[in-house]
Amino acid sequence: MAGKVEASPAFKVVRKPRRRPLNVDELYEGIIRGDRTALARGITCVESEAPRHQVIARELLRRCLPHSGNSIRIGITGIPGAGKSQFLECIGKLLCDADERVAVLAVDPSSSVTGGSILGDKTRMENLCRDVRAFIRPSPAGATLGGVAAKTRESMILCEAAGYKVIFVETVGVGQSEVAVRSMVDFFLLLQLAGAGDELQGIKKGVIEMADAIVVNKSDGDNVRRTKVARGEYARVLQHLHPFTEGWQPKALCCSGLMGTGVWEIWEMVQEFCEKLKAENRFDEIRSKQNAKWFRSLLEQRVLDAFYAKQSLDGEFAQLEIDVSEGRIPVIEAVETLMT
Amino acid sequence: MAGKVEASPAFKVVRKPRRRPLNVDELYEGIIRGDRTALARGITCVESEAPRHQVIARELLRRCLPHSGNSIRIGITGIPGAGKSQFLECIGKLLCDADERVAVLAVDPSSSVTGGSILGDKTRMENLCRDVRAFIRPSPAGATLGGVAAKTRESMILCEAAGYKVIFVETVGVGQSEVAVRSMVDFFLLLQLAGAGDELQGIKKGVIEMADAIVVNKSDGDNVRRTKVARGEYARVLQHLHPFTEGWQPKALCCSGLMGTGVWEIWEMVQEFCEKLKAENRFDEIRSKQNAKWFRSLLEQRVLDAFYAKQSLDGEFAQLEIDVSEGRIPVIEAVETLMT
Repeated sequence: MAGKVEASPAFKVVRKPRRRPLNVDELYEGIIRGDRTALARGITCVESEAPRHQVIARELLRRCLPHSGNSIRIGITGIPGAGKSQFLECIGKLLCDADERVAVLAVDPSSSVTGGSILGDKTRMENLCRDVRAFIRPSPAGATLGGVAAKTRESMILCEAAGYKVIFVETVGVGQSEVAVRSMVDFFLLLQLAGAGDELQGIKKGVIEMADAIVVNKSDGDNVRRTKVARGEYARVLQHLHPFTEGWQPKALCCSGLMGTGVWEIWEMVQEFCEKLKAENRFDEIRSKQNAKWFRSLLEQRVLDAFYAKQSLDGEFAQLEIDVSEGRIPVIEAVETLMT
Repeated sequence: MAGKVEASPAFKVVRKPRRRPLNVDELYEGIIRGDRTALARGITCVESEAPRHQVIARELLRRCLPHSGNSIRIGITGIPGAGKSQFLECIGKLLCDADERVAVLAVDPSSSVTGGSILGDKTRMENLCRDVRAFIRPSPAGATLGGVAAKTRESMILCEAAGYKVIFVETVGVGQSEVAVRSMVDFFLLLQLAGAGDELQGIKKGVIEMADAIVVNKSDGDNVRRTKVARGEYARVLQHLHPFTEGWQPKALCCSGLMGTGVWEIWEMVQEFCEKLKAENRFDEIRSKQNAKWFRSLLEQRVLDAFYAKQSLDGEFAQLEIDVSEGRIPVIEAVETLMT
C-alpha cells in the first residue's frame, strides 16, 4: 500500500450541545416562575416512561400540586373538521389579549399512530403559538387512552403551577377519549357543525349527554342561517336530557371560529358556569370527586396489572382461559381456582 | 287456681312438610331429564348466597356444562310499556306449539328494589306459564347488576342442560343491564314503540348500536301505519351504523304481540341469523369470546374485591383517598404508596 489517508486537519467535529440533565429544583423553580421551557421539559418528564424521569416527575408533581387548581379546565370535543383548532386559536387569542394565560393540551390516543393529527401540526394555531401568554402541547405519545389521559391530568397540574389560568383539553373523540376528558375538566364543550345527518353520523351516542354546552361552529357567510337552525335543534334536544353538571342547564350557541363572532360569549358562559358552581360550593366538590375517581381507576388498573403479571409466570391462567372459552370449565370454577 | 286448661285433644298439629335437602345427584338427574321442578331448584341453588348452596351449585354447573350450549340465546330489551311480556308470551307460545322448549329468564337489577316489575307477575304470561314446554323464571334478587347477570348466565347453562332450545333473556334496560344481556346472548332484539319523541325519550343512547334487530311492536288497529313509518325510520338509522354482529346487517321489523302478526317472521329472522353465523363458523367463536370476557370480568372483580377487603383493615387507604380528593397528594403518589 502506498500511504495512509490521514484525517483532514481542516475538518473539526462539532458536537451537538448536550442538553443539561433534568434537575428537579431547576424545573420546579422554572415552572413556578412561569417559564415555558421549564414547563415543557417538566411535561416531557411526566410523559416519559424512563424510571429516572418518573422519579423526577413524581417529585415535581408533589411540589407543584400545592400551586395547582387555580384555573378553569375546559374540555373541547368535536369530529374532525368541526373547526376545533380554529376555535381554540380564536378563543385563546381573545383570552391572551385580555391578559389571561392560556394552555392547550390534547388527549388523542390515536395521534401516536396516525402521526398526530391533533395539535401535531402547530402551524394550525400559528397566532396562538406565537403568543408568549399561551402554551400549546400536543397529545403525549402514550400507547393507551388511560396512559395518555393520566399524563394529561398531570401535565395540567404543572400548567396550573406555571400560572396558566385557562386550560383547554382538546380531544378528537376517538373511542372513549371524550369520557376521559370529561372526567378531568370543569366544563365540557361539544363543537358541532350544521348539516343534515350530523345527528346520525357525527355525534357519538352519549357525547351530547356529557356536554355543558353545544356550540355550532362556522356560523359565517352563507352558513349563518343553517347554524341557527341547528342551534335551535340542539337547544330542544338538550331540554330533554338530564344535565351532566347538576344545576347547570346545558346551552346551545353559535359561533364563528374564523370571524370570531360569538366566541367571547362562550367565554362569558364559561365564567357564568364557574360563578354559579362556586357560589354553591360545588366547583371544588366536583374536582374532589374527579380526583377520587381517578385515584380509584389508576389504583385498580395497577392492581389488575400486578395480578396478570403474576399469572403470566405460570401456564395455569392461560390454560384456564382456554378451557373456559371452549366451555370445558364453568367460569365460576376457573375464577375460584385462581383466587384460592 | 281452679284447674288447668288442657290442650284440646281435638287439635292436631299439622306440620308443613319439610322440603327435602338439596342433593346434587338428584338435581342433576332431574335437570337432564328435563324436570322443571329440578331445574327451578337448581337455579335457586345457583342464585343462593349460602355457602352450602354454592358448593352444590358449582358441582351442578360442572356436571351440566357438557350438556349445555345447544340453544339459541335471544336477548330482549325495550322500555316499560313496549310490550315485552306480550311479545314473549306470543313468540313463546308459537314456539311451544311448534314443539320447541322455551325458557324465559330476566336480568333486572332493580326488581329486588321495586318489587319486581319484570316477570315478577307471572300472570302477565299466563298462557305461556301453563305450557309444560315453557320455563319462566323471574330476575334473581341479587344486589348488583354484575351479580344478577352472572347468575343469569349460570341459570342459562342449567336451562340448556334441561333441554331448552330457545332461551329468552329479558331486560327492562335499567342502567347497564342491556350491556350485560348483550354480552350473554347470540341475538339481541330491541322492542320499540312507534311515536314521536321516542328517539329522544325512550331509547338509551348506544342501545340501537347493540341490536341485531329493532322490532316496532303494537302494529295493530289504528297503529299499523305509524309503526310502518317508524320501522322505515329505524331501517334508515340502522344503515348508518356499524353492525354489532360482524356480517349481520341489523333489520327493522313490525309486529303485534297482541294479534300475533309478524311474530313468526321474527323467529325466521333469528333462524336465518343462526344459519348464517354457523355456516361461517362464527356462532361458536362469538360464544367463546363471550365466555373469555365473562371470565376476565368476574376474575377482575374478585381480584379488586380481595384488594379492597385487605385495604379496609387499615386506615391508610381511607386517609390516602381523602388526601388525594382534597388535592394534598398527587394521585400517582398515593397509588404507588399502596402498591409498594
